[in-house]
Amino acid sequence: MLFHVRMDVDIPRDLDRTEAEKLLADEKAKAQELQRVGTWRHLWRIVGHYANISVFDVETPAQLHHILTSLPLFPFMKITVTPLCQQPSSIGAEEG
Amino acid sequence: MLFHVRMDVDIPRDLDRTEAEKLLADEKAKAQELQRVGTWRHLWRIVGHYANISVFDVETPAQLHHILTSLPLFPFMKITVTPLCQQPSSIGAEEG
Amino acid sequence: MLFHVRMDVDIPRDLDRTEAEKLLADEKAKAQELQRVGTWRHLWRIVGHYANISVFDVETPAQLHHILTSLPLFPFMKITVTPLCQQPSSIGAEEG
Amino acid sequence: MLFHVRMDVDIPRDLDRTEAEKLLADEKAKAQELQRVGTWRHLWRIVGHYANISVFDVETPAQLHHILTSLPLFPFMKITVTPLCQQPSSIGAEEG
Amino acid sequence: MLFHVRMDVDIPRDLDRTEAEKLLADEKAKAQELQRVGTWRHLWRIVGHYANISVFDVETPAQLHHILTSLPLFPFMKITVTPLCQQPSSIGAEEG
Amino acid sequence: MLFHVRMDVDIPRDLDRTEAEKLLADEKAKAQELQRVGTWRHLWRIVGHYANISVFDVETPAQLHHILTSLPLFPFMKITVTPLCQQPSSIGAEEG
Amino acid sequence: MLFHVRMDVDIPRDLDRTEAEKLLADEKAKAQELQRVGTWRHLWRIVGHYANISVFDVETPAQLHHILTSLPLFPFMKITVTPLCQQPSSIGAEEG
Amino acid sequence: MLFHVRMDVDIPRDLDRTEAEKLLADEKAKAQELQRVGTWRHLWRIVGHYANISVFDVETPAQLHHILTSLPLFPFMKITVTPLCQQPSSIGAEEG
Amino acid sequence: MLFHVRMDVDIPRDLDRTEAEKLLADEKAKAQELQRVGTWRHLWRIVGHYANISVFDVETPAQLHHILTSLPLFPFMKITVTPLCQQPSSIGAEEG
Amino acid sequence: MLFHVRMDVDIPRDLDRTEAEKLLADEKAKAQELQRVGTWRHLWRIVGHYANISVFDVETPAQLHHILTSLPLFPFMKITVTPLCQQPSSIGAEEG
Repeated sequence: MLFHVRMDVDIPRDLDRTEAEKLLADEKAKAQELQRVGTWRHLWRIVGHYANISVFDVETPAQLHHILTSLPLFPFMKITVTPLCQQPSSIGAEEG
Repeated sequence: MLFHVRMDVDIPRDLDRTEAEKLLADEKAKAQELQRVGTWRHLWRIVGHYANISVFDVETPAQLHHILTSLPLFPFMKITVTPLCQQPSSIGAEEG
Repeated sequence: MLFHVRMDVDIPRDLDRTEAEKLLADEKAKAQELQRVGTWRHLWRIVGHYANISVFDVETPAQLHHILTSLPLFPFMKITVTPLCQQPSSIGAEEG
Repeated sequence: MLFHVRMDVDIPRDLDRTEAEKLLADEKAKAQELQRVGTWRHLWRIVGHYANISVFDVETPAQLHHILTSLPLFPFMKITVTPLCQQPSSIGAEEG
Repeated sequence: MLFHVRMDVDIPRDLDRTEAEKLLADEKAKAQELQRVGTWRHLWRIVGHYANISVFDVETPAQLHHILTSLPLFPFMKITVTPLCQQPSSIGAEEG
Repeated sequence: MLFHVRMDVDIPRDLDRTEAEKLLADEKAKAQELQRVGTWRHLWRIVGHYANISVFDVETPAQLHHILTSLPLFPFMKITVTPLCQQPSSIGAEEG
Repeated sequence: MLFHVRMDVDIPRDLDRTEAEKLLADEKAKAQELQRVGTWRHLWRIVGHYANISVFDVETPAQLHHILTSLPLFPFMKITVTPLCQQPSSIGAEEG
Repeated sequence: MLFHVRMDVDIPRDLDRTEAEKLLADEKAKAQELQRVGTWRHLWRIVGHYANISVFDVETPAQLHHILTSLPLFPFMKITVTPLCQQPSSIGAEEG
Repeated sequence: MLFHVRMDVDIPRDLDRTEAEKLLADEKAKAQELQRVGTWRHLWRIVGHYANISVFDVETPAQLHHILTSLPLFPFMKITVTPLCQQPSSIGAEEG
Repeated sequence: MLFHVRMDVDIPRDLDRTEAEKLLADEKAKAQELQRVGTWRHLWRIVGHYANISVFDVETPAQLHHILTSLPLFPFMKITVTPLCQQPSSIGAEEG
């Protein structure tokens, strides 16, 4: 099932630089791993923002919660979750 | 280039029923045509709402404006447009 | 899976009285049928409002969308959907 | 009487780690104790948020106030309280 | 128990004049009856608005819901309910 | 003349504990003194919030401003002031 | 005492033209009368809006309420009232 | 030309006390100087807030910007600017 | 002097078609006339909206008010006005 | 293609003064370079705010994102991006 997720990132200025870089690298690795297995189905940057719009394909809402709260940047993100389903006019079999 | 578009539809109760059905059929035909040529790249229904979240792939913002304002339901939609670009962690070549 | 749903009802003053009464009776019948099969798990009135807070237990988000948009009062409701999951401190096995 | 309560938790980054862990353990113990006696009737996690939606069954609003302000995490929570009552279509005797 | 209630009234222009006057007279009679029995404990007009701020003293939230939804002007009011309790610095025995 | 005042208190975590306790004691003493002379006519706690709803009876808006800005917790409060007057349906001589 | 008042006017399209013109003329006459006696102390138009910002000098909040609700355009205005007082840096004796 | 300006002041708790007092004295001197030359035409305190509502009479918007950003408290103020003009019903020659 | 203006247009469905077309033609003629004389300095469409963002160059705020309220579509527009001035980093002599 | 961008700047009080001055000088140099090449087509200060309204002319949304996130003050700016296109009534060839 599909969920639309917007994540706005706000890393505090006083976060240790090394820690921040490690967090960013870990976040990237995690995001790519989840994309490769097909869970993090879409990932776009919002122009002019340190934010992304994503679509996740998960088995359950609980799995989505586990994934989002396990992201290395979770403590620094404001997250909005919107459940999606098949639009009657959609011709994409995989769209919901 | 990609644009994230949310459309909330609100068809007035007093719209003539035949006119409304024609609008809906035209909207569906238009949406499917635009999906087939790859312009309306994604189309999802938001659960519990008469609304959709879409991603369009257009040549210019002007083309997007022309497409959206030509939709049969345009007069009855509240539209939000968000420009997207490639997220550095994205592994999808087509994602922006 | 569980979804928290708030429904605010606003029936137009000029709706035909007989039609309105039929809608309300149908809504009640539908709500009770869905409660009996365990899909509409909780249903409360918000004090001072023509609105309810509910918890639905469904197989998929698509099923929830189908249920909500099939409600007789759907055209007259503003709906907010929030996906839920198990809270780590919850002792209720059925809570998520 | 029933009250719907949403709690959004925001624990400051500079809170001492040991103190934070003690707070979380105390909060969990308190939440489970209140669930066992039937006061904290429902407790769900909101997907993607460090927040919960709950339903409390109390004798008076004053008791609810006492319970909420006694929670170990109270100083770090934004709380919204909504009074509930029986919905005419509800078939659950205990729902309000 | 005490509840703080704000009511903003908006009577439609096309409401029949005789019906409107009857509604207003009924509302006034009901409000005065509820004040006399001590249920509608306080009632103030907000300066510059067709709105009031009130404090109700009821046995249960359900009773408050019944009272508010029985008011003749209920269909034309936007209502906000806030549960109150005793403030530790209050010297008024009846304040909560 | 009557003014409805809501005060939301937010005491910073890093305020010296002794200073905080003195502020709270001073606030309580001041609140009780103003209640005794009839200026702070009503004072209620909002359930689940560190906030109160009050009604002040003052000679002038300037007096109200002086009172509010002299409260020991003023620097830590967000205040909303609403002028009140007699509601035509009110039977309380003192209500405005 | 001084009150800052913003009035946003929205005259319905279907109001009878003769009635509308009479309302506007009456409103103008009333506004000028109140300015001449010094009650409506300031009156400015907001650029680009059918709205004004005003300052009233009244004896009581109740008098202000009576004045505002007696304005011919009151049924078509959204009003915001803000109580004012003397600013310590003001050199104008009449400013509050 | 006239501009309506609201300034909400929020001086940080950790600002050096001597620096803060100097800022306040400088702000007062500046405000009084601008009132004497007729540029800061009106200045009122909002009851219950550390905020003022003002009307400035300037030659150009650029002059207003220069004045506001030169105020000693500018770094600690949230400012809202609204352009004004003559209201057709105003009898004050100087009102716009 | 420059003002940034956003205009959101909402033409009622029940406006007579001939009247609507005349309004639109008049609006276009007026907009082009004001552009030719340099008063309506910039005019852009917002993608996906029946709205524009404009920059006006006027002698006074009163002139801007007169222009905006004289636009044929003024009764159907929601307008937001923001005064502009020269940005210190701007290299455009005409930019404010 | 054109994008309307609003940037609200908020430089933290505790930023090192030398660092802040360097950032501001770098920002100015960058802004002027982008204006000279025609990318940053318009740049205005909002009266009374540490904020600007700009229009950018870029090849792609991705280029705009790159430009905005490369600005020296980007970490201290809240940015809003609105895509523009040609308004049918515009007589400016370059306006979209």
